[in-house]
Amino acid sequence: MKDVQVLAFDIFGTVVDWHGSIVREMQALHPQVDGDAFAIAWRAGYKPAMARVMSGELGWTRIDDLHRIILDQILPQFGLEGLHEEQRVHLNKVWHRLAPWPDSVEGLTRLKRRYTICSLSNGNIGLLTNMAKRAGLPWDCVLSAEVFRAYKPDPATYLGVARVFDLAPQEVALVAAHHDDLAGARACGLRTAYIERPLEFGATRPKDVAPRPENSLHCASLTALADQLGL
Amino acid sequence: MKDVQVLAFDIFGTVVDWHGSIVREMQALHPQVDGDAFAIAWRAGYKPAMARVMSGELGWTRIDDLHRIILDQILPQFGLEGLHEEQRVHLNKVWHRLAPWPDSVEGLTRLKRRYTICSLSNGNIGLLTNMAKRAGLPWDCVLSAEVFRAYKPDPATYLGVARVFDLAPQEVALVAAHHDDLAGARACGLRTAYIERPLEFGATRPKDVAPRPENSLHCASLTALADQLGL
Repeated sequence: MKDVQVLAFDIFGTVVDWHGSIVREMQALHPQVDGDAFAIAWRAGYKPAMARVMSGELGWTRIDDLHRIILDQILPQFGLEGLHEEQRVHLNKVWHRLAPWPDSVEGLTRLKRRYTICSLSNGNIGLLTNMAKRAGLPWDCVLSAEVFRAYKPDPATYLGVARVFDLAPQEVALVAAHHDDLAGARACGLRTAYIERPLEFGATRPKDVAPRPENSLHCASLTALADQLGL
Repeated sequence: MKDVQVLAFDIFGTVVDWHGSIVREMQALHPQVDGDAFAIAWRAGYKPAMARVMSGELGWTRIDDLHRIILDQILPQFGLEGLHEEQRVHLNKVWHRLAPWPDSVEGLTRLKRRYTICSLSNGNIGLLTNMAKRAGLPWDCVLSAEVFRAYKPDPATYLGVARVFDLAPQEVALVAAHHDDLAGARACGLRTAYIERPLEFGATRPKDVAPRPENSLHCASLTALADQLGL
């Protein structure tokens, strides 16, 4: 990691807890619904929806709009087909209101002392900015699939970060809790830091977070990443 | 301004003092050169260079690269044709090192309490991010011509800010020290705040900063803007 100048962070699952945040909102708004199953169903539509964009079946579409398409599809499965437009708009924006993991703000604040820290998320710029402002995520710069008009793991996203900062790929590290994202970055020459988020999918679906040797770093949290980097 | 949620800031001249910063760097690096004339000559190439991009004569080109084209053109006029590549690269990055006006950091910090604050500059994302990190400009989000692939005053830039945040144009205000920029924003339906920067072009070229009735607000500085907005 010695040449690294920019740390680019995956967001959903890595910096913020999408599952827990959606469960809590559902408990508050629609307590009759199984919030855990609802969160899982919503998130399950995410990769297929992005694939429709990247295959060209859909033109460029932001995650806010993909989330809404999926939401409209799953509401009837949870007895919520009666939600009116304003309620759907509000619920869809739960992705702007996701809460950070307990270590995220402190970890980012420490990492920012030495590195330029930016998001590199499939979330759109407005979503990421609203989230950061609410949660206190101290980005130097909000980068998004929306800037590069391509979704991760498209190389245009990882190489796009290097190009924005006029750096070689090995001067950028991707920080993520997902091996497929890290593999995409590594294939482009970026360094990679894996963050354990064993409860990303909720307490009943613990994730295998065993170290894999292909990553440059393996850390339990963003504060652990700061520790490992001497910050 | 009552519906405004996002304040988008012009950067060069409005938030940072390009003329004074370049003069100081030239005094330190090349004291034999007239830094004032050098800064003016460099900046004078800026609009014509962007016009070559927007006319299609040049493909999409970032400001860093346009600054470099202009720099290479003017160096011989100042007896600096002997600068080697590394010196040219360093000098070209002076635009990443521009100093804020004395009121900028305090003004932005206060405005950020109520508004989402972002840059809307023809500068590229990396330039704006490096500048913000060095100067302590507390953006919620760095927006740039590079995101919209169009230079101000193209409507795609002003309307692009509204679209990023899913807002109507009148919910966004452009804050700038240049009437042509504000006129472009106003034509798209944005609110406008004019900031007096009488010494933008140096002490020997005071600018007419008389109020014009077409702007929503007229302020002496960014702290005065915060005052006017009750922050």
